Amino acid sequence: MILDNFKSVISKYEVVFFDAFGVLKTYNGLIPGIENTFKYLKENGKDFYVVTNDASRSPDQLAESYVRLGIDDITPDRIISSGMLAREYLELKVRNGIVAYLGTDNSAHYLETSKLKTVSIRSLNLDSVADVSALVFLDDEGFDWNTDLTKTLNLLRKRNIPVIVANTDKTYPASKSRLSIAVGALAKMIEDTIGRQFIRFGKPDPQMFIFAYQHIKNYPDISKRDILMVGDTLHTDILGGNKFGLDTALVLTGNTQAEDAEVRIRSAGIIPTYICVSAVVD
Amino acid sequence: MILDNFKSVISKYEVVFFDAFGVLKTYNGLIPGIENTFKYLKENGKDFYVVTNDASRSPDQLAESYVRLGIDDITPDRIISSGMLAREYLELKVRNGIVAYLGTDNSAHYLETSKLKTVSIRSLNLDSVADVSALVFLDDEGFDWNTDLTKTLNLLRKRNIPVIVANTDKTYPASKSRLSIAVGALAKMIEDTIGRQFIRFGKPDPQMFIFAYQHIKNYPDISKRDILMVGDTLHTDILGGNKFGLDTALVLTGNTQAEDAEVRIRSAGIIPTYICVSAVVD
Amino acid sequence: MILDNFKSVISKYEVVFFDAFGVLKTYNGLIPGIENTFKYLKENGKDFYVVTNDASRSPDQLAESYVRLGIDDITPDRIISSGMLAREYLELKVRNGIVAYLGTDNSAHYLETSKLKTVSIRSLNLDSVADVSALVFLDDEGFDWNTDLTKTLNLLRKRNIPVIVANTDKTYPASKSRLSIAVGALAKMIEDTIGRQFIRFGKPDPQMFIFAYQHIKNYPDISKRDILMVGDTLHTDILGGNKFGLDTALVLTGNTQAEDAEVRIRSAGIIPTYICVSAVVD
Amino acid sequence: MILDNFKSVISKYEVVFFDAFGVLKTYNGLIPGIENTFKYLKENGKDFYVVTNDASRSPDQLAESYVRLGIDDITPDRIISSGMLAREYLELKVRNGIVAYLGTDNSAHYLETSKLKTVSIRSLNLDSVADVSALVFLDDEGFDWNTDLTKTLNLLRKRNIPVIVANTDKTYPASKSRLSIAVGALAKMIEDTIGRQFIRFGKPDPQMFIFAYQHIKNYPDISKRDILMVGDTLHTDILGGNKFGLDTALVLTGNTQAEDAEVRIRSAGIIPTYICVSAVVD
Repeated sequence: MILDNFKSVISKYEVVFFDAFGVLKTYNGLIPGIENTFKYLKENGKDFYVVTNDASRSPDQLAESYVRLGIDDITPDRIISSGMLAREYLELKVRNGIVAYLGTDNSAHYLETSKLKTVSIRSLNLDSVADVSALVFLDDEGFDWNTDLTKTLNLLRKRNIPVIVANTDKTYPASKSRLSIAVGALAKMIEDTIGRQFIRFGKPDPQMFIFAYQHIKNYPDISKRDILMVGDTLHTDILGGNKFGLDTALVLTGNTQAEDAEVRIRSAGIIPTYICVSAVVD
Repeated sequence: MILDNFKSVISKYEVVFFDAFGVLKTYNGLIPGIENTFKYLKENGKDFYVVTNDASRSPDQLAESYVRLGIDDITPDRIISSGMLAREYLELKVRNGIVAYLGTDNSAHYLETSKLKTVSIRSLNLDSVADVSALVFLDDEGFDWNTDLTKTLNLLRKRNIPVIVANTDKTYPASKSRLSIAVGALAKMIEDTIGRQFIRFGKPDPQMFIFAYQHIKNYPDISKRDILMVGDTLHTDILGGNKFGLDTALVLTGNTQAEDAEVRIRSAGIIPTYICVSAVVD
Repeated sequence: MILDNFKSVISKYEVVFFDAFGVLKTYNGLIPGIENTFKYLKENGKDFYVVTNDASRSPDQLAESYVRLGIDDITPDRIISSGMLAREYLELKVRNGIVAYLGTDNSAHYLETSKLKTVSIRSLNLDSVADVSALVFLDDEGFDWNTDLTKTLNLLRKRNIPVIVANTDKTYPASKSRLSIAVGALAKMIEDTIGRQFIRFGKPDPQMFIFAYQHIKNYPDISKRDILMVGDTLHTDILGGNKFGLDTALVLTGNTQAEDAEVRIRSAGIIPTYICVSAVVD
Repeated sequence: MILDNFKSVISKYEVVFFDAFGVLKTYNGLIPGIENTFKYLKENGKDFYVVTNDASRSPDQLAESYVRLGIDDITPDRIISSGMLAREYLELKVRNGIVAYLGTDNSAHYLETSKLKTVSIRSLNLDSVADVSALVFLDDEGFDWNTDLTKTLNLLRKRNIPVIVANTDKTYPASKSRLSIAVGALAKMIEDTIGRQFIRFGKPDPQMFIFAYQHIKNYPDISKRDILMVGDTLHTDILGGNKFGLDTALVLTGNTQAEDAEVRIRSAGIIPTYICVSAVVD
């Protein structure tokens, strides 16, 4: 496996899309040295965005979390989350009524508009659901899985409403040795059980990449050829980036480790343009 | 849709296999008049068995539940449950060590042998799992889904052990208007997330039918042609019975209703030998 | 089921996306009266596009086929096909080398560029495949399924290259009573067999809709709220349109018939904004 | 990876089930030295059976093929094929009418009885199918995939009949470097396209193992604990053997190679009781 130098790679592009977890940070905090990457990007006038499967917080709150870690380059306008797509969907397609949600109350505030109220499945009374116009899976926290997933199933038997899954990931790392089950896995269980088609937002779906592309400062004057997608996960970051027509760089600081990168690329048939040790410019 | 008379149908067979829920009983208790069916079977010297996807209780406890409902014909030796297959599997293939389980303590007692101990995932210490030799999904009750499904995922990342799903059903009816999520759906979520192959017991899998077949009193002198499988669910009772080579009767007192039986048979391509209003002999 | 008047519906939008088969035409030719719809659109200054899962011909050839049927409003610039996405993908991501294909020679000509040559799997010598840089499934015709699908499987075992499926449909109607197997079904069989991830273009994938959106004359000044997607198939036209944020109209002249439209909407959970008898303005 | 000595392993069992391809033979002929294994079994009074996913020939013809290779120990009564299950199914459940088939004429002769006629899809007239009472996928040879798979799809749209897949394998090796597509993959494509449930026979399905178990000379006096399943494929031989309650031995002469056996066992969670270099007793 020939490894590419990350600095040489990004020097060829005008815009860089970064996945967050496993690329910029881990459960331990920032990837050591990643601040140099943002320094390099700024000095060389390159644009960048963080493209993340996350609906647990608003872009403002996500940006704050980077500030707390010591990086203030990642401003809210540079964050593209799957939660933003869920919000856009509701604005375009649901418009009014009550949106039931699974997640923390905090995750739901971001979805509210003057015409659209939200209610936690936890607080929902199943005997009075006539006003519920959509359901959104936002986060794995903030509710009791036994009680509230069962309520969700029964809500959907009563109401044929759009169901939005705002983060399709199945797991996320909670510590060096522990994984947590993400809301995407819970949503899949309910979807399989009810037998209906949910609306899913998140990489590798191209809608996530389109949304990021359209948020670029110089859009539409930037060609897809001038954008690099950087990620640690073949089936989301690299597959989605490739399909959207972007060049892609796999980094080995997260889900894909150096020892099995080649085997995984071969068996999945998902081929990154570059493979780099990390997203750190040194 | 031509309906067959249930009495005429069962008169042609020497042995009848009944599904339990939706055929003999519902959340409301017994199907009215079902006691006549057992009277008819006894008077006509016909053998019968209840073949059920259930691992929440032992055959003794299941039989007791029918006695409480007022039927004492269904003795423990006439009950074939998917939990019995899980127990046979452990005896044949695991033999010793500790079996971790998801379910009530009561459901696990049935699995214990002199050499095989059980421990609830709830009580398991993830830092000391070297003795855990298998994992069994028994019941959706008896544990906290948030905490204990996550523990289950992390146990499986530490230990490559056989995982047994002792009831593959995805839902069961809790009341006239409410469904509950069954342990089969929870197991499927973990299986999809970890990407490993679990060992599943329950209709429509033929192992359930061969197990029942071998429990028949006159086995092996009874031909498959002399056995009728009676059930309310196309994808479990009828598909499994057909595949095993039995004639099958669909009854309309449970999952399949009169108004959509024909559409479902046509779209699924699962064709019962007979369709009857119910399993009641009147 | 309340049916909406198609003319009233489209009067509310500035741009209309039409699916082709089952909406504008069938195996018998044009839907009777559909020419009035294009007359209405022209007279009322409304823009329209045909958005079709088809990679068997270039936009020029597709437009010609409408002229032959008697409609000259559907000019090549108004046609958005999944084949166009395949071509864009190759230009952005493959760039040079030889692209092997399954389909007619005619379907492949459209993919050729000065740097990218194509070769039919039929003519490929499996012992000299070092230059093959991608594989494209274009059409179900133009090759021998026994021989050439087997060759395809063995090509992919030798070369880990991107595989593009330029039409994800599984079937298409060949006559009133016969279906044909479409190239999407053949591709799925090879994908399942080799266990790799193919790159699929076609509704309901959002990339098809963004591609159409960006081809609109007044893009980006047209909001998604001003576009209506009209289709006959819930799982492609309506699901994809909804997810992309468009309003959607289901018409009953193709895959979805009046008698089962409601049942299908309920069981799939895919909800069109409107249901109309046909796309004919009368 | 600790390898077990095959002779020591089989010395512990009274009956051995062998997979055929990759265990006893390859595309090159017999596994060198395998005749010693049969000599050992005979000398030590151990019973054995060949349990194979194959519906292309009758047991008599399969036995002849071993004689031609130089082994005459594998008599027809020692062969258990998935084709035998298809035949039993038709006898039990279809009984009369015409069975349409995909495969060679030779493969179909085995299914015929005095009451059951067969007709190749190739020769079937789609306008007169009222007598067709079942469809069987037997072999990938003997028909034109383009024409006859399309005919199959349209037959199933006209007739809601049982569909039997008599070999669920997706591929088989045609030479050192080439795979062929097996009939199981073709059947899966049609099943996905029509959306109906087919009846599938072949390992890892337990019906294959119970069928073999019941063919044992001393059945039912032999316990499952006294039977060893020997195979080269984790997802069929080992998974199926394990689930049925047998001990299992993985050999490294076929689909699973020494260099990736451990990785595959870990990632699939399918755990053989033993791993042996080959099934050769030396």
